[in-house]
Amino acid sequence: MDPDSVAKAFVEHYYRTFDSNRANLVGLYQDGSMLTFEGAKIQGAPAIAAKLTSLPFDQCAHVISTVDCQPSGPQDGMIVFVSGQLQLAGEQHPLKFSQMFHLMPTPQRSFYVQNDIFRLNYA
Amino acid sequence: MDPDSVAKAFVEHYYRTFDSNRANLVGLYQDGSMLTFEGAKIQGAPAIAAKLTSLPFDQCAHVISTVDCQPSGPQDGMIVFVSGQLQLAGEQHPLKFSQMFHLMPTPQRSFYVQNDIFRLNYA
Repeated sequence: MDPDSVAKAFVEHYYRTFDSNRANLVGLYQDGSMLTFEGAKIQGAPAIAAKLTSLPFDQCAHVISTVDCQPSGPQDGMIVFVSGQLQLAGEQHPLKFSQMFHLMPTPQRSFYVQNDIFRLNYA
Repeated sequence: MDPDSVAKAFVEHYYRTFDSNRANLVGLYQDGSMLTFEGAKIQGAPAIAAKLTSLPFDQCAHVISTVDCQPSGPQDGMIVFVSGQLQLAGEQHPLKFSQMFHLMPTPQRSFYVQNDIFRLNYA
C-alpha cells in the first residue's frame, strides 16, 4: 500500500475503534508513546488508555474531514495529520478537532503510535 | 532549555519570520523537508520557500493560541503542534489554522523542519 492508503486505513481503524470500544486503543500504543490531549501530557499505553476511557463522554462519533501524511524521517515512521468533527451523544453541535499521529513501524510490519496530539478547534 | 521552551521559541521565530520576511524561512528547511499546505505536498527547501512566498496574500499576522510539543523518538527530534489565527491584511475576520512541525537537530545544536503540515480550520 502507498503511504496515503496506509494513513487512511490507520485513521479509519483508529476512530472506528475509538467510537465502538475505546479500551481497545491500548494495543496501538507502547510504553514510550505519548499523548497530549487538550494540553495534558500522558505517557505509556496503560496511562493513555486510562485517559481515553475516562473522557467525560460515552457514545461519540468521529467524522473525518482531511487526512494528510508524510514520511517522518529515516526510521520509516509516518506522520498523519487529521481534521474532523466529534459528535457527542446528546449534543446538538459537533466539535471540530485537529489531531496528529506519529506512527512507527513494528517488527510485525504494522505500526504503533509514538506521538499523539489532540486539540479541539475552539470557535 | 527544556523542550517546551525550545518549542515556544521556535514557534515565535517561525511566525515572526513568516509575518515579516517569508523568504527567510528557507533557512529552516533542508532538501529532505516536506510541507503539506492545504493538501498540496512540496518537498525541499527551495520549493517550500517558493510555495510560501507565492501564497495569495502579502501582509499577514499570526496569533498563536496553543503550542504542544513532544519528543519524536530516539533521534532527538521534536514534534510541535500549533493552533492559532491568521489575520490577512484587508480581511475582517482572521482564519483559524492548525499546523504541525517535526523538528530534527542539526550538528550546530539547532533544528531544521523535517515535516510541516498546515490546515485551515474551516468553519
